[in-house]
Amino acid sequence: MTTQTGPLIQTQVPESFCNLATGQPSPRLLPMELLAYAASRRLRPDTDRLLLQYATCAGGEHFREGLAAFLTQEFQARVTADTLMISNGISGALAIIFGTFSGQNRLVVSEDPTYFLARDVFTSSGAEVVGVPVDAEGLQVEVLEHKLRHESLRPSMLYTIPTHQNPTSACMSEARRRRLIELAEEFNFLIIADEPYNFLAFNQEIIKPFAALDEGRGRVISLGSFSKLLGPALRLGWIHAAPHLIAKIAQHGVLSSGGGVNPVMAEIVLETLVDGSLSTHIKTLQQVLGTRRTVLVESLQKYIPEMQFVTPQGGYFLWAKLPEGIKALALWNTGQQHALSFMPGTRCALGGGHQDRARLSFSFYEADEIPERIQRFAKVIEAHRAQTT
Amino acid sequence: MTTQTGPLIQTQVPESFCNLATGQPSPRLLPMELLAYAASRRLRPDTDRLLLQYATCAGGEHFREGLAAFLTQEFQARVTADTLMISNGISGALAIIFGTFSGQNRLVVSEDPTYFLARDVFTSSGAEVVGVPVDAEGLQVEVLEHKLRHESLRPSMLYTIPTHQNPTSACMSEARRRRLIELAEEFNFLIIADEPYNFLAFNQEIIKPFAALDEGRGRVISLGSFSKLLGPALRLGWIHAAPHLIAKIAQHGVLSSGGGVNPVMAEIVLETLVDGSLSTHIKTLQQVLGTRRTVLVESLQKYIPEMQFVTPQGGYFLWAKLPEGIKALALWNTGQQHALSFMPGTRCALGGGHQDRARLSFSFYEADEIPERIQRFAKVIEAHRAQTT
Repeated sequence: MTTQTGPLIQTQVPESFCNLATGQPSPRLLPMELLAYAASRRLRPDTDRLLLQYATCAGGEHFREGLAAFLTQEFQARVTADTLMISNGISGALAIIFGTFSGQNRLVVSEDPTYFLARDVFTSSGAEVVGVPVDAEGLQVEVLEHKLRHESLRPSMLYTIPTHQNPTSACMSEARRRRLIELAEEFNFLIIADEPYNFLAFNQEIIKPFAALDEGRGRVISLGSFSKLLGPALRLGWIHAAPHLIAKIAQHGVLSSGGGVNPVMAEIVLETLVDGSLSTHIKTLQQVLGTRRTVLVESLQKYIPEMQFVTPQGGYFLWAKLPEGIKALALWNTGQQHALSFMPGTRCALGGGHQDRARLSFSFYEADEIPERIQRFAKVIEAHRAQTT
Repeated sequence: MTTQTGPLIQTQVPESFCNLATGQPSPRLLPMELLAYAASRRLRPDTDRLLLQYATCAGGEHFREGLAAFLTQEFQARVTADTLMISNGISGALAIIFGTFSGQNRLVVSEDPTYFLARDVFTSSGAEVVGVPVDAEGLQVEVLEHKLRHESLRPSMLYTIPTHQNPTSACMSEARRRRLIELAEEFNFLIIADEPYNFLAFNQEIIKPFAALDEGRGRVISLGSFSKLLGPALRLGWIHAAPHLIAKIAQHGVLSSGGGVNPVMAEIVLETLVDGSLSTHIKTLQQVLGTRRTVLVESLQKYIPEMQFVTPQGGYFLWAKLPEGIKALALWNTGQQHALSFMPGTRCALGGGHQDRARLSFSFYEADEIPERIQRFAKVIEAHRAQTT
């Protein structure tokens, strides 16, 4: 890739497109060897044929036990099998949970900004989604409380990404989490915590799942996933909640008809939980992603010093405030002319907000590829200013 | 297993329970060798890591091409890749399709009797389900027409199992299928055809998917599955419909967020489509299930001659009319005392009907196990009569 030195015209688009938008795992870190080895051990000609039969709705008992042991070790906090069930990734879990608990009340409250595809999961299931703002400590619980108490907001559930939030990287404080549970009790809603990034923490303790604070009250459902640990294509995750909630979710018609979710893939993944290979891989992910985060931060400070942000402590994303006066969508359009993409803040908004923001991913590119890409981003900003002034 | 010669009391329950109710595939015929071999070829340490990445919503292009070639060969009728997408079995497809197309109209019409768990899939997604009766030619389309024309029935979709129906084994005539499409056009609803049994046909031609009659009008969505061909635990099936319907279903939020359905499992299964091993296995299934069907029919004629039924031409089930005066649920209760189970007709009903019916499965037991089990069923009927008269 050559570094561009001036505005480009369409015919000069460089061969390699620079994609700072993607929320995909790093291709190099997708552990094919690990999965191939696990599959070769679990799927053998002499494997019990009943592995291919209809399975139980919540997932096989030994899978749930193995997952419980794995989570207990990784979170350093006891997780029991009766609080876990298998899911078709977090996206699949959201649909199943909405179907199970929404009833006549199809209103979902979500953080704003949030994961840009979460709303579609809910609306495709028939929900209406309204937003509550986020700051450095996560969801602004006091704003939510005001809406509940004084504006007759009556959701059936609240959707949050409490840890290393997408896109802000904020971690919700424990005080806010506890207050949120109190509000859920008072106003009778469920908290659905989307937690795919907890293990991808840099230089700090792993934050426990939100459900660990629930203490059996049945107000919090945490959703975990192997998508960012092993690979999205496995379509495998887990639901973590009080046993009576798990029992209710497991009665969803799709699960009782289909015989649970992805039992064969679950058995393959179980191999990687039991033999410790996933734990080892997670340490690699933490190290590699942490380095990329650092390189991204340093590159931004060097090449686009007027960009403001909070340094992410985990996850995939950095939530940048664009230089004064630049609108995200207009800059994105300029970026397209220069074969560079990022996610405009507006894409993460539930309304039309966050026009001064960009979500930059550090999950996809290698550390040594990042500085050049941020230089390129700086040139795009420069070109954009030249075009618009 | 000893054949019981008289009424049993609870403490004498024999070791092996006789389950004529189950709709599970025969354990012996779950092709673990075939799957293990396919997995060993597709999941290797040097396999492209991008197999583990987010995939496309409708399924990978080469999977859809491979499936199209397989279906074209098996159905002896051209099926193209743009009319196909991957699904999480039929159960998962039903939820995705209902979410995509129901909108404000949550009314689903279903055959009555029908697959006993289908209603739960719909109601878990927020639907209301009403029934239309079935006869030897399948759904009674003229009854449906009357309800549409004179009783203001306005469904958003109609759910049918048109081929080797569960539980009746009826195959809907082509005339009725064509009339149903006309009604769907006139009254603006979609036909959702649940077709897991088409390939399990005995001594006759394979019936083409209902969607093959749609001819691009976009009124019929056929659902296929590998559950009865390779194993339910794969959670893999396909949706077959006009390309514009496929495009719309592929936009469902769960698919765009999750990156399609089960891409890794799809790649493993694709191996068995391409190398012909699934086609070979299907011939085995046809032969084995056909023999079991014949043995079941002969055993019923011999041991319970007053049982009436239409001989199934495919699928898993025989829909028996119980001897005069016997109620299915009461007989089922007697069966439990004798460690014997079947599916009472009422379980397949949408209302309280079919009390004089039993669904008997020939999918689960070996042919040489069936006569003894039907003898045992005859004894249960005898015992039941002794108890109730």
